[in-house]
Amino acid sequence: MPAIWWSAPLAAILAILMAMVFYKKMMAASEGSERMKEIAGYVREGAMAYLWRQYKVVGFVFIALFVLFSLLALFHIQNPFVPVAFLTGGFFSGLCGYIGMKTATRASNRTAQAASEGLNRGLQVAFRSGAVMGMVVVGFGLIDICLWYLILDKLVYTPVHMAEGLSFLGMDIVSQGCTEAEKLVHITTTMLTFGMGASTQALFARVGGGIYTKAADVGADLVGKVEAGIPEDDPRNPATIADNVGDNVGDVAGMGADLYESYCGSILATAALGAAVAAQSGTFEAEQATKLVLAPMIVAGFGTFLSILGIGLVRCKEGASQKQLLRSLLTGTLGSSIFVLIALLFLIFLDFISWGVFGAVVSGLVAGVIIGQATEYYTSAEYKPTRGIAFQAQMGPATTIIDGLATGMYSAGLPVVTIVIGILCAFGFAGGFGDQAGAFAQGLYGVGFAAVGMLSTLGITLATDAYGPIADNAGGNAEMSGLPPEVRQRTDALDSLGNTTAATGKGFAIGSAALTALALLASFIEEAKIWIGKFDSGLGEGINVAEASKMSLLSFVDQYQLTIMNPLLLGGLFLGGMVAFLFCAMTMKAVGRAAGSMVEEVRRQFKDKPGIMEGKETPDYAKCVAISTAGAQREMILPSLLAIVIPVVTGLVLGIPGVMGLLAGGLATGFVLATMLNNAGGAWDNAKKYIENGAHGGKKLPDGSKNPTHGAAVIGDTVGDPCKDTSGPALNILIKLMSMVCIVFAPVIIKFSPTIQQWLGISGILQ
Amino acid sequence: MPAIWWSAPLAAILAILMAMVFYKKMMAASEGSERMKEIAGYVREGAMAYLWRQYKVVGFVFIALFVLFSLLALFHIQNPFVPVAFLTGGFFSGLCGYIGMKTATRASNRTAQAASEGLNRGLQVAFRSGAVMGMVVVGFGLIDICLWYLILDKLVYTPVHMAEGLSFLGMDIVSQGCTEAEKLVHITTTMLTFGMGASTQALFARVGGGIYTKAADVGADLVGKVEAGIPEDDPRNPATIADNVGDNVGDVAGMGADLYESYCGSILATAALGAAVAAQSGTFEAEQATKLVLAPMIVAGFGTFLSILGIGLVRCKEGASQKQLLRSLLTGTLGSSIFVLIALLFLIFLDFISWGVFGAVVSGLVAGVIIGQATEYYTSAEYKPTRGIAFQAQMGPATTIIDGLATGMYSAGLPVVTIVIGILCAFGFAGGFGDQAGAFAQGLYGVGFAAVGMLSTLGITLATDAYGPIADNAGGNAEMSGLPPEVRQRTDALDSLGNTTAATGKGFAIGSAALTALALLASFIEEAKIWIGKFDSGLGEGINVAEASKMSLLSFVDQYQLTIMNPLLLGGLFLGGMVAFLFCAMTMKAVGRAAGSMVEEVRRQFKDKPGIMEGKETPDYAKCVAISTAGAQREMILPSLLAIVIPVVTGLVLGIPGVMGLLAGGLATGFVLATMLNNAGGAWDNAKKYIENGAHGGKKLPDGSKNPTHGAAVIGDTVGDPCKDTSGPALNILIKLMSMVCIVFAPVIIKFSPTIQQWLGISGILQ
Repeated sequence: MPAIWWSAPLAAILAILMAMVFYKKMMAASEGSERMKEIAGYVREGAMAYLWRQYKVVGFVFIALFVLFSLLALFHIQNPFVPVAFLTGGFFSGLCGYIGMKTATRASNRTAQAASEGLNRGLQVAFRSGAVMGMVVVGFGLIDICLWYLILDKLVYTPVHMAEGLSFLGMDIVSQGCTEAEKLVHITTTMLTFGMGASTQALFARVGGGIYTKAADVGADLVGKVEAGIPEDDPRNPATIADNVGDNVGDVAGMGADLYESYCGSILATAALGAAVAAQSGTFEAEQATKLVLAPMIVAGFGTFLSILGIGLVRCKEGASQKQLLRSLLTGTLGSSIFVLIALLFLIFLDFISWGVFGAVVSGLVAGVIIGQATEYYTSAEYKPTRGIAFQAQMGPATTIIDGLATGMYSAGLPVVTIVIGILCAFGFAGGFGDQAGAFAQGLYGVGFAAVGMLSTLGITLATDAYGPIADNAGGNAEMSGLPPEVRQRTDALDSLGNTTAATGKGFAIGSAALTALALLASFIEEAKIWIGKFDSGLGEGINVAEASKMSLLSFVDQYQLTIMNPLLLGGLFLGGMVAFLFCAMTMKAVGRAAGSMVEEVRRQFKDKPGIMEGKETPDYAKCVAISTAGAQREMILPSLLAIVIPVVTGLVLGIPGVMGLLAGGLATGFVLATMLNNAGGAWDNAKKYIENGAHGGKKLPDGSKNPTHGAAVIGDTVGDPCKDTSGPALNILIKLMSMVCIVFAPVIIKFSPTIQQWLGISGILQ
Repeated sequence: MPAIWWSAPLAAILAILMAMVFYKKMMAASEGSERMKEIAGYVREGAMAYLWRQYKVVGFVFIALFVLFSLLALFHIQNPFVPVAFLTGGFFSGLCGYIGMKTATRASNRTAQAASEGLNRGLQVAFRSGAVMGMVVVGFGLIDICLWYLILDKLVYTPVHMAEGLSFLGMDIVSQGCTEAEKLVHITTTMLTFGMGASTQALFARVGGGIYTKAADVGADLVGKVEAGIPEDDPRNPATIADNVGDNVGDVAGMGADLYESYCGSILATAALGAAVAAQSGTFEAEQATKLVLAPMIVAGFGTFLSILGIGLVRCKEGASQKQLLRSLLTGTLGSSIFVLIALLFLIFLDFISWGVFGAVVSGLVAGVIIGQATEYYTSAEYKPTRGIAFQAQMGPATTIIDGLATGMYSAGLPVVTIVIGILCAFGFAGGFGDQAGAFAQGLYGVGFAAVGMLSTLGITLATDAYGPIADNAGGNAEMSGLPPEVRQRTDALDSLGNTTAATGKGFAIGSAALTALALLASFIEEAKIWIGKFDSGLGEGINVAEASKMSLLSFVDQYQLTIMNPLLLGGLFLGGMVAFLFCAMTMKAVGRAAGSMVEEVRRQFKDKPGIMEGKETPDYAKCVAISTAGAQREMILPSLLAIVIPVVTGLVLGIPGVMGLLAGGLATGFVLATMLNNAGGAWDNAKKYIENGAHGGKKLPDGSKNPTHGAAVIGDTVGDPCKDTSGPALNILIKLMSMVCIVFAPVIIKFSPTIQQWLGISGILQ
């Protein structure tokens, strides 16, 4: 193993240490007044109570899947490492969520206190807390990958085993006489399955958190703001604590788990494709094969070092103006990416990667920046689309909604064209369009690497993403504790500062999700090949493991007729598109139902305790928190299970072509739909804020009555809430999780689908 | 040519004659009072003025495309028959629209008058007028197909030419020594291109009509109903005539053109696939090949006879109750379909079709019925989903919208699963999963035939579809002429009777569109093969025409790497999904803009002519009609051109794999999105009606004030209007038109894309 690989685990450990340092520094800041501590205490308790209950539910699912995978392993339909790998992926993801939440809920009152001392002080505390999240995600993600690689490489696939073969629980783990490239195929495909744990955890975090936060938000707004006419975050609103808890569980824990999954998924998928390149070429030496597999981990390690450096740079400017702060944040994020490119040049020098891969990473980064800018254009009140929605609000809620929906749909155009060009460039630069052996796999390796490049500086981009919600919560704390209005103004400024830097972050997140999903799609084939070889099934011509790993991707595609005219694949394609819509429908309805219970509870409290509105009685915050928690727990189960069950059932009935169709259809439709929902929601939100800032008459008309234009915009914002904070983000995970499910269940699908298809009479298309 | 083929042109001529009879009978009915004639006159003038202006715009597009195709033909990049075929397809489709509109606008006051005499009299006049539309669509569609077949078979591909070859304008039209099967491949692929004319006409009719009708509707509602508080169809509303004109141009002319295209497209695509089956098998005799090609036309002919019979049956029950009428209508539509199955048995006896094809048709019909019932379930106020939306309306407009969106997304689930199973069954029954030569083409032939079966009784299903809008317009006429309220009640009853029978019709329309699009996708390959052979291009191994038509579909798929892992195809897939969303966005925004102008005009008239509200001044109806007309004309051009330009550009850049990806992605996403938009719109509409009928407090609260629940439902309905009447239906055409564009531009794509790809460095994936 080349010495430079150790930079990856080292970077991971350093990241975790830095997280501890940042955490300590944040905790050292002043907690503010007793009232501020009290409010923060409510939010913290609510958030932690929610998190533990979520982990309980997720725990059951993990135990069930662990037992299932263990049984599969016992019957030799799954690798015996998979159940354990699945657990570690889930465990580390959950740990990141826990630490991120613990930090965020402790940072809100400290940020509010710091903001009352000055804007920059506020930024310091909030940004440092966001950095904790960024550091633990990359740290734990990378350490998990490195540990598994070490264990599998050094302990399982040691040279002795490769020569003599190894059985475990009676299963052929290491084939006798395994070559270096074949070994790497085995190791990477096994490691891929730990991504399933991270994906499952992420899905529950996103769906549960998304439902929680929007149920509380919609409930609080509909009764508090609309019916009772009290402002946002008013302590008289019984749902206000639940609303603030929601920001934490949705925006902090949910986002962290989401990006943890993308981060690990992209590295693992790229490593697996690297092994495939080596195995299929046949001319690659052992050393070169190892380099292909290790390169993504090393790039991630370099990116982590550079992120830490970037965070340090942001931290240094103590007495800067807001404009300078923004420049400093942007320098930190974009600068880190540029440094990653320089690091890649170093890797080219060491012959770890090719110039083609470098080109692929550049394609990915450029695509991410363009998608981010397009997002900014379509959702910021600075530009025409969002102002158009505000203009339409003058004609009432109906035209506001129509225009917002249309804007969301429009906004998918540029990102899709960008990602298509990005994929083609990454594939092409990495040599995919060449006609030498293994070119196709090299192209896909490039696509995977584009995602790795985009996510390599996740440490800092996540820090700039995560500090926004912390600032937002600090604003809530300031409002409820009755701090002077300028504190709220400062936290709002921090929040909007975060939104500007977050646009690029969002572009990277969405773009990398699409690229990762595509790399996972290709990895599914790698996984499938292994198992077809193992089963020596009737599907192929009796390929054994060694043969299977040598088989080219395109030969596999030909053999299993993964063509667009195969009705099984087309059927999968239709189903994939449908699943994306169905999943959205379920999460939206879930928000509606959970919000309904919240509305009833808030109305009941206002009715039963008339003293609340006069400020004489304390509302029962805990009851609202409990309702949101229970609602989210109940509602997250069905859509999440659906995401796991549908790919398996599709695979069993429609076979490998059906799976590929499902994943491709889900990816294409899911990407467009997620972009639409995210941007429509964002645009409605900012159109409302634009009107609140005085456009089209502002909040109140000159005669003091409510401005109906603002009312229409509020309705648009409320419709957009579940779109942008529940359904849209959850779709991002759905498209990756479905790929992961197919990868983990590949042996089951390969073993049983031929029989089922024979029985249904839908097998065999030869002419 | 077998004698039984003549049943098709005969049926077509009979249908046209029957249309004349029905028209005469309708015209013989009483026109009602002077006021009724006057109102009808306004609507007729507005509708005809719109139609002529639409034809003018479409005419320019047709001339431009005719010149383009002629130039292509001159340079031997297109068949010299194509420009002419393109024109006839467009001409007959336009003629159907004209006749349908002429009938509908003359029928409205006559139906109102008849309804004032009794419910059944009203049904007679409305249904007969709808039947005119049904008859002209199938009559002109079938006669166009039969004429082209006769001309090409008898005049161009005569036995003499087949032996000696034939050149036209220096182009090799008939290869020397052409076999019967090859001849049929040539004939059918040439005929396919006339579908492009019908598709283009349909797109403009649907998009233009859809924008017109919803701009007028939204404009009339927002100012008239919401601001001025006057009821629907009140003569004081200046936009009310435009609204009624809109029902005609959108629901009558638009729907007619849409189904004309599906009808012709399904027959043509299936005939082309029949020729492919024959050419690829090699063992088929000339007679059997001819039978495969003629079978879809003959089934269409039989279906037309049976539709006429069915319409006759509905006509006979003169003194029946409403329940009996409904049963009679259902007997007519479903009965005709069952008789078609019997006719198919007869064709099996004559060895025209196989039992497998029979099974395919049954699969299609069952799928159509299930999709129709699912539509009914999700959009009727009798069932939970729509009632759920009405329930959510109690919490305000935001929850109404969220729930409606979610319901629409949900509602796509069952139809997608149904269509997937339907496709697999049709493909499987017709022998697609077999492993004999040509099995794959046979399966696709089955899929095409399933669509032909569903549309064979279009004559009667379109009659039951088209009489609804006529009854609706009659209601408007009754309202504006001040007829007693029971007349309006009767026309409303007729309208809702039509909605019940139309559910199955809609299921057939959507289902057949998906199946037709799939058959067209396969036909694209047939077209491409011919041209690759003609160009003897560098793409393949120099296939000539005779070789090309023998090449199996799957060999083509393999050779051009139409696999799901080909990044060019995947890129196309992403773009296809995006185009569906973009097209929706454009049409929705167009409605918004056109409605905005209408709102301004209506407000202006109310302001400038205060006498209007008191009933003392006549509003300027013509001005509103002119605004809607101009708006629709202006707004329809860009989205329509986009639908033509995007497939060509995608094909030129991404080549054949890109085209296939685009079409598959557009089909899958478009189908789901269209179902969602149609059903969400329908559900919002019926939720509003459900509340108006008294649920959740009805229109007004006990104290006489407006019920906010009803207000929320009205907002939902307004949002749903462009979804269900503009964007959704237009998507149905988009997915077919894009296939047609690719088929017609196949030679251009095949000739130039290799050079472009070479230049871009994205050609050649070999390993």
